[in-house]
Amino acid sequence: MRRLRMGMIGGGPGAFIGPVHRIAAEMDREIELVAGVFSSDAGRSRAAGESYRIDPARAYPDLDTMFAAEKAREDGIDFVSIVSPNHHHLPAARAALAAGLPVISDKPATTTFAEAKELAGHVAAAGLPYGLTHTYSGYPLVREARARVAAGQIGTVRKVVVEYPQGWLAGEAVGKQAEWRVDPARSGPGGCIGDIGTHAFQLTEFISGQEVTEILADLGAVVPGRQVDDDCTVLLRFSNGARGVLLASQIEVGEMNGLRIRLYGDKGGMVWKQEVPNTLTLHTLDGRTEIIHAAGTQIGPDAASRTRTPTGHPEGYLEAFANIYRDFAAVLRGEEAPLLPGIDTALRGMAFIATAVEASNNRAGWVPLTV
Amino acid sequence: MRRLRMGMIGGGPGAFIGPVHRIAAEMDREIELVAGVFSSDAGRSRAAGESYRIDPARAYPDLDTMFAAEKAREDGIDFVSIVSPNHHHLPAARAALAAGLPVISDKPATTTFAEAKELAGHVAAAGLPYGLTHTYSGYPLVREARARVAAGQIGTVRKVVVEYPQGWLAGEAVGKQAEWRVDPARSGPGGCIGDIGTHAFQLTEFISGQEVTEILADLGAVVPGRQVDDDCTVLLRFSNGARGVLLASQIEVGEMNGLRIRLYGDKGGMVWKQEVPNTLTLHTLDGRTEIIHAAGTQIGPDAASRTRTPTGHPEGYLEAFANIYRDFAAVLRGEEAPLLPGIDTALRGMAFIATAVEASNNRAGWVPLTV
Amino acid sequence: MRRLRMGMIGGGPGAFIGPVHRIAAEMDREIELVAGVFSSDAGRSRAAGESYRIDPARAYPDLDTMFAAEKAREDGIDFVSIVSPNHHHLPAARAALAAGLPVISDKPATTTFAEAKELAGHVAAAGLPYGLTHTYSGYPLVREARARVAAGQIGTVRKVVVEYPQGWLAGEAVGKQAEWRVDPARSGPGGCIGDIGTHAFQLTEFISGQEVTEILADLGAVVPGRQVDDDCTVLLRFSNGARGVLLASQIEVGEMNGLRIRLYGDKGGMVWKQEVPNTLTLHTLDGRTEIIHAAGTQIGPDAASRTRTPTGHPEGYLEAFANIYRDFAAVLRGEEAPLLPGIDTALRGMAFIATAVEASNNRAGWVPLTV
Amino acid sequence: MRRLRMGMIGGGPGAFIGPVHRIAAEMDREIELVAGVFSSDAGRSRAAGESYRIDPARAYPDLDTMFAAEKAREDGIDFVSIVSPNHHHLPAARAALAAGLPVISDKPATTTFAEAKELAGHVAAAGLPYGLTHTYSGYPLVREARARVAAGQIGTVRKVVVEYPQGWLAGEAVGKQAEWRVDPARSGPGGCIGDIGTHAFQLTEFISGQEVTEILADLGAVVPGRQVDDDCTVLLRFSNGARGVLLASQIEVGEMNGLRIRLYGDKGGMVWKQEVPNTLTLHTLDGRTEIIHAAGTQIGPDAASRTRTPTGHPEGYLEAFANIYRDFAAVLRGEEAPLLPGIDTALRGMAFIATAVEASNNRAGWVPLTV
Repeated sequence: MRRLRMGMIGGGPGAFIGPVHRIAAEMDREIELVAGVFSSDAGRSRAAGESYRIDPARAYPDLDTMFAAEKAREDGIDFVSIVSPNHHHLPAARAALAAGLPVISDKPATTTFAEAKELAGHVAAAGLPYGLTHTYSGYPLVREARARVAAGQIGTVRKVVVEYPQGWLAGEAVGKQAEWRVDPARSGPGGCIGDIGTHAFQLTEFISGQEVTEILADLGAVVPGRQVDDDCTVLLRFSNGARGVLLASQIEVGEMNGLRIRLYGDKGGMVWKQEVPNTLTLHTLDGRTEIIHAAGTQIGPDAASRTRTPTGHPEGYLEAFANIYRDFAAVLRGEEAPLLPGIDTALRGMAFIATAVEASNNRAGWVPLTV
Repeated sequence: MRRLRMGMIGGGPGAFIGPVHRIAAEMDREIELVAGVFSSDAGRSRAAGESYRIDPARAYPDLDTMFAAEKAREDGIDFVSIVSPNHHHLPAARAALAAGLPVISDKPATTTFAEAKELAGHVAAAGLPYGLTHTYSGYPLVREARARVAAGQIGTVRKVVVEYPQGWLAGEAVGKQAEWRVDPARSGPGGCIGDIGTHAFQLTEFISGQEVTEILADLGAVVPGRQVDDDCTVLLRFSNGARGVLLASQIEVGEMNGLRIRLYGDKGGMVWKQEVPNTLTLHTLDGRTEIIHAAGTQIGPDAASRTRTPTGHPEGYLEAFANIYRDFAAVLRGEEAPLLPGIDTALRGMAFIATAVEASNNRAGWVPLTV
Repeated sequence: MRRLRMGMIGGGPGAFIGPVHRIAAEMDREIELVAGVFSSDAGRSRAAGESYRIDPARAYPDLDTMFAAEKAREDGIDFVSIVSPNHHHLPAARAALAAGLPVISDKPATTTFAEAKELAGHVAAAGLPYGLTHTYSGYPLVREARARVAAGQIGTVRKVVVEYPQGWLAGEAVGKQAEWRVDPARSGPGGCIGDIGTHAFQLTEFISGQEVTEILADLGAVVPGRQVDDDCTVLLRFSNGARGVLLASQIEVGEMNGLRIRLYGDKGGMVWKQEVPNTLTLHTLDGRTEIIHAAGTQIGPDAASRTRTPTGHPEGYLEAFANIYRDFAAVLRGEEAPLLPGIDTALRGMAFIATAVEASNNRAGWVPLTV
Repeated sequence: MRRLRMGMIGGGPGAFIGPVHRIAAEMDREIELVAGVFSSDAGRSRAAGESYRIDPARAYPDLDTMFAAEKAREDGIDFVSIVSPNHHHLPAARAALAAGLPVISDKPATTTFAEAKELAGHVAAAGLPYGLTHTYSGYPLVREARARVAAGQIGTVRKVVVEYPQGWLAGEAVGKQAEWRVDPARSGPGGCIGDIGTHAFQLTEFISGQEVTEILADLGAVVPGRQVDDDCTVLLRFSNGARGVLLASQIEVGEMNGLRIRLYGDKGGMVWKQEVPNTLTLHTLDGRTEIIHAAGTQIGPDAASRTRTPTGHPEGYLEAFANIYRDFAAVLRGEEAPLLPGIDTALRGMAFIATAVEASNNRAGWVPLTV
């Protein structure tokens, strides 16, 4: 079975996320990076192609050139991976789908909910696979948590607390990664809520198996002069009546990438932390606490199939990311990959961002979340 | 210098908090338990007196008898400690103050804000010391955190996140400790918000040096049939504009007494967790993380004066509690103890509970917090 | 039931361990400090008595005076607690036993094994209780560990690893606590091995239920000019053939009081750490990991009877110490307290120190450990 | 710059380490797996080739065939990676070197010290690069630790404690991974000491910058019937006089891959743990504790150049492994890679194993370690 061929859009010099996608895509040898438009600047695109060690002829200056050239090759790309800043997502995806290419995209899916709906239309019209790299749902123990909730191990979910603290934007937003994220023209109206809040949001629904139906949002721009939110509190209500809280911040000095989620039901509780991702803590109503180890004897098939090393040999962010690409590869091969975040997740995420921003601006209290 | 003599009100058979107060009060040999009305049932009061090994003659059946008898003794009590359920707090404090006795009381100070204002009147009229046992502000590293914030180590406080998860009321409320806490007649209108939310609230103001000026409260009664809240989310705004979040819950299965607080400023961040109380984590904007150890070389006088063992020899809840009593003893001896929570803290705590309960019931959004 | 009356020997100004014994002894109100010879200097003894708030008349200048005066009182002391440096232990205990007073003593029991044997003779001749404050065996979860090993939860014990790292003597030994510990005339021939190695040794036997039968010792004096060992490695063999390792050091910079022990059998494993004493980790051969919480629902009677606060309210060093005193009080009242370290433990500990020092000096390889 | 082409020896169906080497080698796109003799069984070799998605024609039945066929290709392999059980290491390396191919090999380098010396002769004669995959020295924070020790941050190293507990061989040795490891014919005379003890040994020298000059070994075969050691204690002396302890075990039930190392000097101490590899703890003599984060602002060039994600995005075992391959690729390209373990490390490791096994068998006490 040959490796699938990937064309990358974005990921040029200075973008940390390009190499991350490349490593993740290739980790299981199901996919190979062969081409790309790594920058809208032709020279920078070429330079990036070189750094990725791909055929120089396949580091293209623009999308049209890439699509045409690759179509003409027998070994042309099978899909594109969009890793550029948010405002490029929709145009890139639209063009790729129009060229008959499946799309996997970094999140958030677009800059606005309207764009997301447009995107969903293109995906439906093209009838092609679409994947969204919500990395954290690729962690084996996140999938274990989901499976255990579905199996009723914590009973009826009553409460979900998800926190996503970061501190790297506590000062001035300096550097390529920071600048576009605090610029509404490139990131969309949401800052922190779109950049990391949407990850946290996705995780609550992914693990709990419930949908968020109502939210109360309080977003703030703490750093003087900042034009987008950098500190977010969102209260949640889920479809089954469960209560929830989502905290996301990029001004909490010293926090690195502290995503963590806790779910509580009437029979148990569960805790997972991204920075120590290889354990899952399980509590039961009778007072027992169990530690579940990645790749250990106590984990089920969803998690077991997504680890590559024995227990005690830590896997991390790149491996979780690779699991998303493995799911996407499976879909491209016509297999089932029900845990791959797709266009529905994209729509829900963008609805969440839009609703939160608007409700917060209006101090609107509780508002419904609808897609 | 003789030991101060304490009369206890409440703390009878089955009340875990009575022995806790007794141990805490006596730990530094500044105070001695000598008398008490441990129960409104005379026989149970006597039995408790025996378990405390006090003079049987001084285990009284009611307050009036105690006050009269103790006044008549040369070695009569110097003050009372009120450790009974909330609805007894005001009557007991009123009677003690009327009898000329200083009062130290468990929290919350009363059942309602109106009662708290009445209490404040009695305290003012009596001109006697009043202390409130917000235990967690007795931890050495909480005091270290406060001192460091005051010294500007994290710069201007921008964000405070306090969480107080417990799980022990996730099922039916069974047993002496649980039953009165979920009965509004005895606990007051607040359940979780009064029992533990008020601790979390006090901690935010104690460490940050800021006052909460506005809140948005979302309290829920998750366990079917429960008449008071058991799960609380409260958004906070502080006097300097800082944002805050307070989470408290008693239905988070597996959580024990997980109080933790994080403060972030424009120069640094700080994290403290009650269940591992002997370390304080300090982050600086330039990316350094330092661990401050209780009784270690890096701590200042407020914390250093409140430890009893060398670094690495863990102190805990009882020692923190003892620090509150040490402060109270200092006040009784006419010394300064500016960190002792007193009647102002009592008023603010009860205003917080009342405001949160009312605002949540009315889905009122942001409301001012005034005393 | 009246409180037992304690006379302290040692614990004068500057000795941190005196107040620790006082707090521990009094915590459960079974014992009361009423008298003492706190220093061989009469003035310092008086000053210490004042700081303990005891009757000034009962802060004595020497042992003979104390024993005579207390005997003459109706409310005279019931026992003595010896908390002075090691070289005072034997003379103080001998005198107390001769005066008909039970003894509880800090460890190590004496300075040499010969002295320990002499002490054992006095204890036997007097027919009086003798207790040794191996504090760490007073921790509830240490007792839980012992009970679980005895119940076969980890199967046949095969391996014990105990580590006791400290760093406070990594530089020059400065101050009252440090100076006598590095002076063989006062501490005995063992430095680190006697000060903390003996705690680690006691813990291995206490929890495993096995006796050490052979050792191989490698003691070093790392700090230039030091006259006693400050860094120790000792290999162990237990009576059932189990292997063991004991590491103790006082020159490991940054280590505070890092005592920890791990036991492995053919069915499971167990880990306990003094600096986070309120959890015990349990592993089973089939790959499960369970966290046992102090005062939680999963603990047995030995541990449950030795906690004073609900789960999540940390207890620490002082409470563990108090458990030793509670055992001793029980013995004085004629009750059973099988977990109290006594004269047999004293003998084994001193034999361990003597054997380790001699074997290390002689580079003797494996040698039997006999009492 | 083209990718280097790797031929794998070993790594057939059921061998977890084959895919690990493949992922590690390819992670940075400097190397590509293109060929292999994955099993001595031709059919199994083909099947493995398919699972790796390489050209079926390049999954060879034996070494000679591979070397001949690859030599004949313009795009033939540039080097081999040996990932088979130990007894294949020498013959495979010898043949590869004879065929003019550089070698990177899993550890231990050979089964015996005599073999290692023979290997060293072949490497010297061939004048070709040789690398040894001591994975753990590829972790960024291990390199940070090494750099900090070299820079004098902990002063003169006085003490090194390395522990490598595992539990997976506590029961019967079942399965492909376990069986050969407990068979002296395939693993060599050392069991645990060779499988993991040698990693621990290498780490002590790598970080401390000192060589071990003397050892005292106590190896045991704890599981009944086991023919090689499964539990090891080795005392160490370093070239500068520093003391050391090495603990390795495969029968410590519940331990996964708990490698951890602590180094102490006269100015500071340092702690690193493989299972939480993205932090390094640094202690200073004046009582400060600092946490160093991988990819954080406080790390130096050796570590910074070996991370792929921002701080807080955990990297793990595969990334550390990839760092070894990146070093090896650098060497193949003629660049400097001074941290790559090579033939000298191989010789020292095999000398360590041989000396430890022999000294333990003879109960020889302290013996010199010479290469």
